Amino acid sequence: MPHLSPFEWLGDALRIIDQTALPLEERYIVCRTAEDVADAIKSMKVRGAPAIGCVAAFGMVLAAKTALAKIRCRHEMFDELMRAKETLASTRPTAVNLFWALDRMTKVVTRCGTNLDELISELESEAIAIAREDVEANMRMGMYGASLIPERANILTHCNAGALATAGYGTALGVIRAAHEQGKKVHVWVDETRPFLQGARLTAWELQRDGIPFTLISDNVAGMLMRSKMVDLVIVGADRIAANGDVANKIGTYSLAVLARHHGIPFYVAAPTSTIDLSCHSGDEIPIEQRDGEEVRTILGARIVPADVPAFNPAFDVTPHELVEAIITERGIIKPPFEEGLKNILLIQ
Amino acid sequence: MPHLSPFEWLGDALRIIDQTALPLEERYIVCRTAEDVADAIKSMKVRGAPAIGCVAAFGMVLAAKTALAKIRCRHEMFDELMRAKETLASTRPTAVNLFWALDRMTKVVTRCGTNLDELISELESEAIAIAREDVEANMRMGMYGASLIPERANILTHCNAGALATAGYGTALGVIRAAHEQGKKVHVWVDETRPFLQGARLTAWELQRDGIPFTLISDNVAGMLMRSKMVDLVIVGADRIAANGDVANKIGTYSLAVLARHHGIPFYVAAPTSTIDLSCHSGDEIPIEQRDGEEVRTILGARIVPADVPAFNPAFDVTPHELVEAIITERGIIKPPFEEGLKNILLIQ
Repeated sequence: MPHLSPFEWLGDALRIIDQTALPLEERYIVCRTAEDVADAIKSMKVRGAPAIGCVAAFGMVLAAKTALAKIRCRHEMFDELMRAKETLASTRPTAVNLFWALDRMTKVVTRCGTNLDELISELESEAIAIAREDVEANMRMGMYGASLIPERANILTHCNAGALATAGYGTALGVIRAAHEQGKKVHVWVDETRPFLQGARLTAWELQRDGIPFTLISDNVAGMLMRSKMVDLVIVGADRIAANGDVANKIGTYSLAVLARHHGIPFYVAAPTSTIDLSCHSGDEIPIEQRDGEEVRTILGARIVPADVPAFNPAFDVTPHELVEAIITERGIIKPPFEEGLKNILLIQ
Repeated sequence: MPHLSPFEWLGDALRIIDQTALPLEERYIVCRTAEDVADAIKSMKVRGAPAIGCVAAFGMVLAAKTALAKIRCRHEMFDELMRAKETLASTRPTAVNLFWALDRMTKVVTRCGTNLDELISELESEAIAIAREDVEANMRMGMYGASLIPERANILTHCNAGALATAGYGTALGVIRAAHEQGKKVHVWVDETRPFLQGARLTAWELQRDGIPFTLISDNVAGMLMRSKMVDLVIVGADRIAANGDVANKIGTYSLAVLARHHGIPFYVAAPTSTIDLSCHSGDEIPIEQRDGEEVRTILGARIVPADVPAFNPAFDVTPHELVEAIITERGIIKPPFEEGLKNILLIQ
């Protein structure tokens, strides 16, 4: 079975598996414009920090290709691409990989100037490289991270930091996959991750496909499991890591980190270096996306409470670095003090 | 508006609001036999520790009334009632109020002997007394508990410990109601309480009816709110309190208690003395109900993951007494050391 990827580049379009329909339905959408890609990100048909970065990069390629038909002079290409970048950048604010990928694409635009054939070809190569490098990073992260997993381990993870959240293989799930592939006896506690149920719908689906033992739980069960000594470690992905090691990740991550600390259980974060944002000194500076309360008042579109019930729906929270045991990247494992470790790892070529 | 109660005694039947249909539908069921009542408890059409005790008591009255038609001699009444008691007792294992109420009813049976008219009349009086005393206890609990609520407070509660969980007024929500009635500016964070959504469906509905300000959140948001200093106290109900003060309550309660401790936020438990079980020395001895994994794989009957996904669904967890700031009862507030306080409060007449 080839590695699962949430998207496939078709040369003039991007095919995306609709993650809002999983696991009950495997439905695909085809994005032909940057706007299509932006809509897919905004509606969470594709989600996960590294995956968002990858598809946004392909969104820039689509913008360049579709622009060809409408621009009257070569200079208009630049405007079109900057508009597309704006559209793609405005979809979701928290995951920094989005901006990181768009910056890489912008550098290509700047470098190529107005030679349109070269520009399009270079943009396409860069997007393909971003996706390929992401899978490679995850495989390396898996190798590094697996060294932290005991021979037998009950692992709790949150949300989906799997193949579906990346170009393939996954960050936190990549580490779990690598440990499993090495023959370690891992069992995963998959929390459902309300409100969007990425754990129940996506992580469980991935683990079931790979034959990795797991059990689904409500988010409320984590504390009780830890107190019963049924969790050996917690591993999650990240949407943005500040310079001091504070980690923004799916809402509920912080609660798990506090619970893990209370029970003396290590709490690991697995993320590619593209998730590190040294321009944010601490987690306080990371913008946290607020989503529609309707996601809380409904579940997969089915209403559970009336529409006039007030609801608060932050999509992410920040886990302070003090609660993080180690950050696993494709360049190695960073342990505290994170400030130094994060800075140094970005200097490695 | 009269106080909301989840059941109404009709003399020869018990009318129950179907809590699985709330808040989108106000549907009622009528129980005419002890089996009807047992089914309503098992299927969680009526839930909440004190409410279960009350309706089980009426179940015994219904058992006595329906037995009249089939028994051939007065002695068979005793067998019928013991069978009914068995049926009612086997519905749910964790909430001790159920067994406490059935014991009160059994004492009436023992006292009355075989005078059937007297027996039925006394059983009915006892069930009515249990329900009346529960409301009175909640009102007193509210009065005591409100003294712990600041003039302005953001209060986090879990599950539903409201009117619907009792004969009326509520335990944890009773304290919040009392504070609100005293003019205190309270705002309640209502967590949805997966898998059964008692917070979203029942607590939000009660607070909205009463005009008490609240906001619905996913269970995952609690930690982030506490870290942001948006929670002043946590208050929950209880299904059983062990002699040492350990508290069994809805799954997820323990996580909230750990989070509250981490943030220096007081964690209160409000429960009538009928919830105290001195025969359990610690929480380890409290039986924890395991419910069908299908409740996790579905939400209100709608499937979110395939039926073959393994799921773990404990209905309750245990919060060790060290994490509890105070236990609010109808006889006063108990502070640590709980062992002594709980024993003493049961001696008060």
